[in-house]
Amino acid sequence: MRKFRWLLMFPIVFVGLVLFASTGWGAENLVSIVAVQKYSRAIHIMAMLLVGFGFLMVFIKKYGRSAVTATYLLVSTAIPLYMLINSMGIFGDPQPFEIDRLILAEFAAASLLICAGAMLGRLKMIQYIILGILFIPCYMLNEWILTGGGLGLMSQGITDTGGSILIHAFGAFFGLGVVITMTTLKEFETPIKSSVTSDQFSMLGSMVLWLFWPSFCAALVVPKLVPLTVVNVVIALCGATVATYFVSVALRRKISIADIANASLAGGVAIGSVCDYATHGTSFIIGILAGALSTYSFVVLLPKFQNIIKKVDTCGVMNLHGLPGLMGGIAAIFVVKGISNTTQLSGIAIMLVIALATGFITGKILALFGRRTVPYVDAEEFVDVET
Amino acid sequence: MRKFRWLLMFPIVFVGLVLFASTGWGAENLVSIVAVQKYSRAIHIMAMLLVGFGFLMVFIKKYGRSAVTATYLLVSTAIPLYMLINSMGIFGDPQPFEIDRLILAEFAAASLLICAGAMLGRLKMIQYIILGILFIPCYMLNEWILTGGGLGLMSQGITDTGGSILIHAFGAFFGLGVVITMTTLKEFETPIKSSVTSDQFSMLGSMVLWLFWPSFCAALVVPKLVPLTVVNVVIALCGATVATYFVSVALRRKISIADIANASLAGGVAIGSVCDYATHGTSFIIGILAGALSTYSFVVLLPKFQNIIKKVDTCGVMNLHGLPGLMGGIAAIFVVKGISNTTQLSGIAIMLVIALATGFITGKILALFGRRTVPYVDAEEFVDVET
Amino acid sequence: MRKFRWLLMFPIVFVGLVLFASTGWGAENLVSIVAVQKYSRAIHIMAMLLVGFGFLMVFIKKYGRSAVTATYLLVSTAIPLYMLINSMGIFGDPQPFEIDRLILAEFAAASLLICAGAMLGRLKMIQYIILGILFIPCYMLNEWILTGGGLGLMSQGITDTGGSILIHAFGAFFGLGVVITMTTLKEFETPIKSSVTSDQFSMLGSMVLWLFWPSFCAALVVPKLVPLTVVNVVIALCGATVATYFVSVALRRKISIADIANASLAGGVAIGSVCDYATHGTSFIIGILAGALSTYSFVVLLPKFQNIIKKVDTCGVMNLHGLPGLMGGIAAIFVVKGISNTTQLSGIAIMLVIALATGFITGKILALFGRRTVPYVDAEEFVDVET
Repeated sequence: MRKFRWLLMFPIVFVGLVLFASTGWGAENLVSIVAVQKYSRAIHIMAMLLVGFGFLMVFIKKYGRSAVTATYLLVSTAIPLYMLINSMGIFGDPQPFEIDRLILAEFAAASLLICAGAMLGRLKMIQYIILGILFIPCYMLNEWILTGGGLGLMSQGITDTGGSILIHAFGAFFGLGVVITMTTLKEFETPIKSSVTSDQFSMLGSMVLWLFWPSFCAALVVPKLVPLTVVNVVIALCGATVATYFVSVALRRKISIADIANASLAGGVAIGSVCDYATHGTSFIIGILAGALSTYSFVVLLPKFQNIIKKVDTCGVMNLHGLPGLMGGIAAIFVVKGISNTTQLSGIAIMLVIALATGFITGKILALFGRRTVPYVDAEEFVDVET
Repeated sequence: MRKFRWLLMFPIVFVGLVLFASTGWGAENLVSIVAVQKYSRAIHIMAMLLVGFGFLMVFIKKYGRSAVTATYLLVSTAIPLYMLINSMGIFGDPQPFEIDRLILAEFAAASLLICAGAMLGRLKMIQYIILGILFIPCYMLNEWILTGGGLGLMSQGITDTGGSILIHAFGAFFGLGVVITMTTLKEFETPIKSSVTSDQFSMLGSMVLWLFWPSFCAALVVPKLVPLTVVNVVIALCGATVATYFVSVALRRKISIADIANASLAGGVAIGSVCDYATHGTSFIIGILAGALSTYSFVVLLPKFQNIIKKVDTCGVMNLHGLPGLMGGIAAIFVVKGISNTTQLSGIAIMLVIALATGFITGKILALFGRRTVPYVDAEEFVDVET
Repeated sequence: MRKFRWLLMFPIVFVGLVLFASTGWGAENLVSIVAVQKYSRAIHIMAMLLVGFGFLMVFIKKYGRSAVTATYLLVSTAIPLYMLINSMGIFGDPQPFEIDRLILAEFAAASLLICAGAMLGRLKMIQYIILGILFIPCYMLNEWILTGGGLGLMSQGITDTGGSILIHAFGAFFGLGVVITMTTLKEFETPIKSSVTSDQFSMLGSMVLWLFWPSFCAALVVPKLVPLTVVNVVIALCGATVATYFVSVALRRKISIADIANASLAGGVAIGSVCDYATHGTSFIIGILAGALSTYSFVVLLPKFQNIIKKVDTCGVMNLHGLPGLMGGIAAIFVVKGISNTTQLSGIAIMLVIALATGFITGKILALFGRRTVPYVDAEEFVDVET
């Protein structure tokens, strides 16, 4: 196994080198002020990917190093790979503008990080890189079909500006597909511990995601709609945060900091599909419902579900990205005028099939590179880890 | 008491839902490049609110979870509430532009967070939400009067671009008003402990506030004056940081990291009123004086003052926001040409009256929901807190 | 010695006050949208300076407070000093635009922080301020000569948009010059300890540097070239991150989190010189080579080199900024068409001479203010440090 892994390094690096060197990635430069403004939002999304997702996953103390290292490796695999495949025009025409392509690649990386959250503590670092290489084409296939392009399954695209379906739900359900293959029973029975310090890093990650979320949803929106979109997202996040507090206390009697750090973000997930259409009032209600749903899912639904399937979704991505993402996608039917219900619902159905199927297959492939019977600890792969 | 609290939840949520759903918050979209540029600054301010204020308050180890959770709840209460009240035109005409209104709401949230810093460790989470609901109308009343609008008390507005008076001093003195009612003697006698780790989080919060401060002061400045304003704020912060080091060592013989984390920011507080008028040289001097004043206040003034009134200003907001804010407001008389001294000074006087009076009343109301005899510890309200 | 130090405070503050007050720093305001867009990038660089460099240096637990305090003091000394000297036109004509001048000052502060990383744990706080005052004129002299201006040593400027040579290599070699004087044998023999928590702060600093790096390289680039530059930098960083993982595992068998936190950034260092010229393919290859070189240097080269010269480069700035900076400067010869090889190589040679010579002299001067025989611990200068 170990030998196999070492052999694997070289082809990956080699193929990467050759492909990248041979292409100029012929994107035009969008010579305009608007491109530079989009760039600001692209950097905000990068902050979400690295500091946001990276530190949100640090809540488990013994994965403190592996979680942030995995974040670095996943982002660094996903972004060049997406840009390369896009420039080759495999799934639809290449995106001609540099910054737009970078933002699309960042969206793919976000979805990958969501998916990786489900299996945190079960992969070695090399397996995260392989996960990234397998995930990106599946993500791009789904994106291509649901935006009305690929395979003729859908004649027109779904309504999903901020990626409730394409990014959040896809990542979560792909992760579920992988987890079904990867989790062992013994691992399922080992409890996970947190600490004050890792909780605070987790809240840091949460806050970085919260505050840059408007840039995520408005990244590719036309300038005219940016103000509306931005305020809608802020309002939805505020609603979810307050709702999370009340529902967390109502269900647990005390507040769980993990609920606050995670479910507060559900407003951003759920507003995605309609962020440039909804009124502020509707956004507030969507946010409140998403926060409540996500918290309820963390406290009640997921533990039940995990006990039934005997699998672990480590970071609870189903609660934060899966269900609120579906909710957001469905909300579009009620909020956006002139939308085709059939398109939206069949889009969600196709996404579920692609995510679970390609996730399941990816899990099978990842298992070839090692399937654990005991949970991962940082000391396996990192030097100087005190116990 | 507990029962009362539970009943309270529902009207709040209900009223919120109804009001938000019934209004479209009919703001025009400022269809322009400038609006999107303002948006970048709005996000920078959001980083200050959540990561900046949130982590600056984490210096007390046993409030690690409650401080960041309270930050989330305060911001999520203040922003929608400000935007709602503004759109209803209760205190003056509604602000027509979405992003401008968001920035004004963020300013209100900043003032609320300053105020909450004074009473950290004495409120339960539900009380922070109530504090937010009571604070925002008082803040808006003061803003309305001092900008020349409300009640006819002032014929013209004060000079306060970056909010030395309207945001910083108001929040600090409102907090003092609340603290006078809320602090008990027993609590006053319990010392507060910090640790290296919480100190580092505190420095993280401080640095995030420092680096985004130019966006705070320049948020609503016309594009032409943005470069001057930004450089003035940076220079003032540099001056305050260096002065804080020298004064901290001079007064204590050793450096207190709490001085560095807090008083370095006093330059930003004090430059607020004149940030788009001063020369760089003046800004540097204002920064040095503000850093020195704030450090002197942390080391000498506040301990004395607290011993006299037997009340605790937990985060020392009077040192960081109160006195430097007043200093900034008064500095405008000397720095800005053609300003009315009467207007500026009577504005400060009115602010002091409104802040202390409404703060005192708010404290009385908050005490109805529980007044502590022993300091708060996270374990009261949070699950899984190790001791 | 202690007395001397106290005397020193007053002239510094006095000279600063007089100079700043007497000059209006008569910069024109670039009244345009482009200036405000540059401003966003200036704030991103500020995040790199404070949170990025500040927390990257926190990996040593017992310097947790001094590292972030030193960062504050270095930045607050460097920026006003650079702007003042620039406005006086001592090294070439003053930069007429406010934001451009601020960005140039931030570049100087970055180089200073790099240099300070080499000597972390050997200076008292007052010595960091003196280091800053001595460093800035040396940096400006080098910048002036290498950009084709000063002393007639070079007839035309070097190609170095993102500062591989001017910022990174200069800071690292200046630091080496200082270290040669400052390090004592006893200190060399004392090992340095880290911990999980400080590792995570270090990764936070690393990620903040990584994600804002595109703004650093594109800060002064014309709008038309911003998209190309930005994507090149992202691609180079991705390449370096993946390469760091593979080389770290290959050389150590396990991953060192210090390698990941540092060498991943080498891609950004090395792409600097050619960031607005290279294709994406070339950028990826430069990133991979820089990550590999930096990791190899951390694991193999630096320990050997330190054993030979018996001096310590605390943060390994030679590995991260020195060698990859040189590599980037040399890469320009192969990547940029129509460039003069003589200019580029003689520029690098002149930089090495100036950096080492002025660094060595600076070290001699710093030693006058105290040369340590035992390593620094925070408790020397900070109150309330638990052991």
